[in-house]
Amino acid sequence: MRYERANIQRLSAYRPGEQPRPGDGVIKLNTNENPYLPTDAVLQAIRRISSDSLRLYPAADAREFREVAASIHGPQRDQVIATNGGDELLRLAVTVFCEPGRGGLGMAEPSYILYATLGEIQDTPITTVTLNDDWSWPNDFADQLNDAGCQLAMVVNPHAPSGRLEPMQRLEAMARKFRGVLLIDEAYVDFASHDALSLVTTDGGLDNVLILRTLSKGYSLAGLRFGYGLGHANLVAAMDKARDSYNTDAVSQAAAVAALQSREAAAQSWQRVIEERQRVADELNGRNWRVFPSESNFLLATSPTDARAIYESLKNRGILARYFDQDRLRDKLRITIGTPQQNNALLTALDEL
Amino acid sequence: MRYERANIQRLSAYRPGEQPRPGDGVIKLNTNENPYLPTDAVLQAIRRISSDSLRLYPAADAREFREVAASIHGPQRDQVIATNGGDELLRLAVTVFCEPGRGGLGMAEPSYILYATLGEIQDTPITTVTLNDDWSWPNDFADQLNDAGCQLAMVVNPHAPSGRLEPMQRLEAMARKFRGVLLIDEAYVDFASHDALSLVTTDGGLDNVLILRTLSKGYSLAGLRFGYGLGHANLVAAMDKARDSYNTDAVSQAAAVAALQSREAAAQSWQRVIEERQRVADELNGRNWRVFPSESNFLLATSPTDARAIYESLKNRGILARYFDQDRLRDKLRITIGTPQQNNALLTALDEL
Repeated sequence: MRYERANIQRLSAYRPGEQPRPGDGVIKLNTNENPYLPTDAVLQAIRRISSDSLRLYPAADAREFREVAASIHGPQRDQVIATNGGDELLRLAVTVFCEPGRGGLGMAEPSYILYATLGEIQDTPITTVTLNDDWSWPNDFADQLNDAGCQLAMVVNPHAPSGRLEPMQRLEAMARKFRGVLLIDEAYVDFASHDALSLVTTDGGLDNVLILRTLSKGYSLAGLRFGYGLGHANLVAAMDKARDSYNTDAVSQAAAVAALQSREAAAQSWQRVIEERQRVADELNGRNWRVFPSESNFLLATSPTDARAIYESLKNRGILARYFDQDRLRDKLRITIGTPQQNNALLTALDEL
Repeated sequence: MRYERANIQRLSAYRPGEQPRPGDGVIKLNTNENPYLPTDAVLQAIRRISSDSLRLYPAADAREFREVAASIHGPQRDQVIATNGGDELLRLAVTVFCEPGRGGLGMAEPSYILYATLGEIQDTPITTVTLNDDWSWPNDFADQLNDAGCQLAMVVNPHAPSGRLEPMQRLEAMARKFRGVLLIDEAYVDFASHDALSLVTTDGGLDNVLILRTLSKGYSLAGLRFGYGLGHANLVAAMDKARDSYNTDAVSQAAAVAALQSREAAAQSWQRVIEERQRVADELNGRNWRVFPSESNFLLATSPTDARAIYESLKNRGILARYFDQDRLRDKLRITIGTPQQNNALLTALDEL
């Protein structure tokens, strides 16, 4: 007998990119990790963890982390929520703001596939809005979501998988026009030329804006699972009630504090990635790929020949890129920016295919 | 404007016990942590974490941990799910098995208050079944839940807050009679004389039984947030689809493997707690408290005088116990078993009040 709800039976689980074990020599350009190591301060914080702080429950409210995040980003501490990776923030937002069976979740198509999975788990209607050819938002984005009655919209900016950055005035116009909660997923913002923080810091923030941040990308801590949300205090308070009581652990809280406090060191890696991003884009364009301008740590590139075949050939050579078997993406690869050596290995492999 | 769902607006957040910071000299007998430190192997595993394993996404399926847990407990690997604390397993079960608006979640009253909170977040009907005076299950427990159409029942065994252990034949009868999923919360089982593992290991297990385990209590790792579920492969597969993709991090996976592999060392602490449990119960009974027989790492004790006043007086002396302001518990304290020194401090304080 099946006991799970019908929507869970129907659900196709989100499938993350392949994760070979560390140290097996694979060049991983498929899940947008930072190719540079986390700062020394993070490793030191983890090594300083005491047995007694493992033994006791962690700070349920991640108070110290929230104070540090607030002081760095500008909002009040009660505008910050810490989560077990950015994914938990996404899931919590759906839980708190989307009604099962009605209301619903809006998103651009294509974007992060997990958004739709989370909507299906909640059994809330999903509305997708098709992006323009250049991956920009259609002018009636908010109208389409309002017409559908969406209670929550998730937009990733810089956009994934294209890397496009929507300008601030469009974000603000969207927030003011959309009648639900606008979650701006800034997972990749450390590699971009602007962020949307002013929407949540000015006068306590717009009452419907929530910004997602993660330590997975910019801070090279995908293995740690630590993300956070910045938004209006009412939105944060509502999610705070519904999150698991001890959703972040003592080790990751300490590491996350150290990460934010050593962000100037981390920012050096962002600069290196940005420089490489331009070089790899130029190189790919020179090889008859068509690369979309990216403000992220990856490139979406249209392949001159069959993209899936190239993905497979690269994989056979120990180089992982990301291939999406979905509309508008089947002729493209999404390629994470690696170290110069890794990027050169990719380019050499492409030349040899 | 309020954007959260009406059930979230109504929700009173679960309030965990007070958590003073480590090292401030408070004697914490309020949240059932193990008074002894985690094994050396755990700390070593954490200190061995490499920067590169922090940089990369963790194993999404916690494969190594699941293999170790399966080999220790007896089921197959696909009968094990790793979670961010036991709380995540509870939440996931509600998400997957309880329909919003109908169906519902069943539990004993009193038991772990979080169960009801999770039901309210899911907006699923909640059915509570009153325990007998000795905290045993009423004979019609399953019938009451079936009549209410419950899709999931959560029972904590040993029971919290009483410490009572239901016998195996009652658990099995309940599982066979109840028409939904029976989640047996064995958070405290390391201190008990039997567990319910045979229900999930014999011939692949009953198709509706799920057992919760946590490293928070027996393994002294409340700060780490690591729990797991053992159950029928179909139940595990359904929850696996709905969990956050990377719900456990690289550090806690490594620590959890080390914890299970060093369980013989951890078990020494269980034995010490069990011995102290008897001594403290005898001492309290000798002071005109009435202590319920406990197979857990805490005692529920009826106070000879006003329980809340004793709770407050102890707190003023730097000793935290747990007071529950709810029916049948207002004349009692739940007291975690500490080290002999901590327990003596408690007893001395009670003598001096």
